[in-house]
Amino acid sequence: MPQRTKYLVGVDLGGTNIVAGALAEDGASDVVALRSEPTRPDQGADAVVDRMVRMIDTVIAETIAQTGARREDVVGVGVGAPGPLDRERGIVVTTPNLGWTNFPLRDVIAERTRLPVRIDNDANCATLGEWWLGAAKGASNVIGMTIGTGIGGGIILGGRLYHGASDVAGEIGHATIDITGRRCKCGNYGCLEAYASGPSIAERAREAIGGDHDTLMGRLVGGDLTRITAATVYEAARLGDDVALDVVRETARFLGAGVANLLNIFNPDVVVIAGGVTQAGDTLFVPLRREVRKRAFRPAVDACQIVPGTLAAAGVVGAVAAYQQQGTLDGR
Amino acid sequence: MPQRTKYLVGVDLGGTNIVAGALAEDGASDVVALRSEPTRPDQGADAVVDRMVRMIDTVIAETIAQTGARREDVVGVGVGAPGPLDRERGIVVTTPNLGWTNFPLRDVIAERTRLPVRIDNDANCATLGEWWLGAAKGASNVIGMTIGTGIGGGIILGGRLYHGASDVAGEIGHATIDITGRRCKCGNYGCLEAYASGPSIAERAREAIGGDHDTLMGRLVGGDLTRITAATVYEAARLGDDVALDVVRETARFLGAGVANLLNIFNPDVVVIAGGVTQAGDTLFVPLRREVRKRAFRPAVDACQIVPGTLAAAGVVGAVAAYQQQGTLDGR
Repeated sequence: MPQRTKYLVGVDLGGTNIVAGALAEDGASDVVALRSEPTRPDQGADAVVDRMVRMIDTVIAETIAQTGARREDVVGVGVGAPGPLDRERGIVVTTPNLGWTNFPLRDVIAERTRLPVRIDNDANCATLGEWWLGAAKGASNVIGMTIGTGIGGGIILGGRLYHGASDVAGEIGHATIDITGRRCKCGNYGCLEAYASGPSIAERAREAIGGDHDTLMGRLVGGDLTRITAATVYEAARLGDDVALDVVRETARFLGAGVANLLNIFNPDVVVIAGGVTQAGDTLFVPLRREVRKRAFRPAVDACQIVPGTLAAAGVVGAVAAYQQQGTLDGR
Repeated sequence: MPQRTKYLVGVDLGGTNIVAGALAEDGASDVVALRSEPTRPDQGADAVVDRMVRMIDTVIAETIAQTGARREDVVGVGVGAPGPLDRERGIVVTTPNLGWTNFPLRDVIAERTRLPVRIDNDANCATLGEWWLGAAKGASNVIGMTIGTGIGGGIILGGRLYHGASDVAGEIGHATIDITGRRCKCGNYGCLEAYASGPSIAERAREAIGGDHDTLMGRLVGGDLTRITAATVYEAARLGDDVALDVVRETARFLGAGVANLLNIFNPDVVVIAGGVTQAGDTLFVPLRREVRKRAFRPAVDACQIVPGTLAAAGVVGAVAAYQQQGTLDGR
């Protein structure tokens, strides 16, 4: 009699949305019972936890319904959460987006679901998802960069997530690329994130049109320039708008410097770039790769693919994979 | 009967000097029979190899004389060489300082000494030496930075050298800290090395005194400003010269940005800084640590010690340690 497939639930806890789904332990299934709900952190930690638990229960019920698995075949829950975390103690140390401090997320969810729970950083999970089943499948050394409200990073070395001495490794968005440059939210100056995060791209676009409403980007937001987002820039660039194209090319230059640094430092096999920025497609990736080639060492450039992420729910897939890695070695 | 101590020879092949010595395999001895000779790369590769082989023979003979070991107790040779290297094939791919291209260093030395030989990058070896017996002894995750003519780097993760996909990981001197900044020898702009290597420090000092011979630094070099080196700057700073102190503080600011990036990315236990720059002592390290604290994430700062290297022959010690690591796993 063949062994029954075991399932793990993955949860991607973001500041805006909670995404959850289940995967076969061996990665042989697609994500089952994927669902997404608004996080609503303003309602407080208890309400967010209630929502997570309800979603996990629903995912388990749907997994059973869709796959014929039994309740006991669902064996654990991996959660990707905004950091910094203390993985060993299962605690979210502090997270501005949720307003939590020293919150014992792992144990709270474990008690409510009666399943073993393991947590890891959300950007780590997104990278690990792309490594397990996505754009960086099976590569040994992978750097993941997720560009959204901020720029998160994940580092996989020798096929395992690297966490550093106190679980904060991978803050590649907060590497200085311009020592006397823009102030970053983190307090530092000239961080990559201060140039190439979604809001930073929108801000540079607003600066580029200089208050002129009668531009394509201005028209796309009905004249209310405060409503320009990075998506507005990509849309206008797609339509051939010169100003937006310039903003995208500048973004490629900043990202290119940041990625070149990663190549010179890590000499990775793959750099996966995920998030809204991938909407820009070749408009971004072609000048980005060119900039990296200009800046990084040849043997590092030759060894590395720079690719967009391919998974719709990399965070969910990666939360499951991170659960499994924590189960084997200490994952450091 | 106790097992006899085995010895390994370490060779640090630099553009200026070759340094060699022997160590007990278990690291229980100090370096035995340490010696240094000028490399003289202008005489060609054969002459450099002859010199290396002669030095290795002498080190072995002296080790036997000093420790009572037998010839067969000396079991291998580790060589730290300027990169990029192909470790697996034992080849120096290219090295501007020596003028070598695709030189099969490992096999040439092995044939001449009739000992097994393994090669690794010189900056990797310097870092591994400090990890094995020096300032970073026993730490899990260590970044080493050697500041001399260039800025070399070594990365130790989980107690093992990290080499990357094609053996070029650790080029931390060529991370951009100023995207529109100074041109670097590597072709890129704004590399850390373009601000904080020995020659870059000397160049900034010359710019700071603006051709004025009648300054302390000018007098220290007898009025010939082209003779100012980084050592001149440290000496003048030690004597309280304001211009030199400014140059050292600026150096701390640049290095601080570079080191802060490493903290945010790697979250290491220890950063070891070695090379001539350590002569500046607290004049450099105090503002350097302050700058890092300003720029890096608190949990990364709290987890990390930033220390000067303590070994006189870190490259020799590390070449022996790298030999041993290559012998166990593939070292990747």
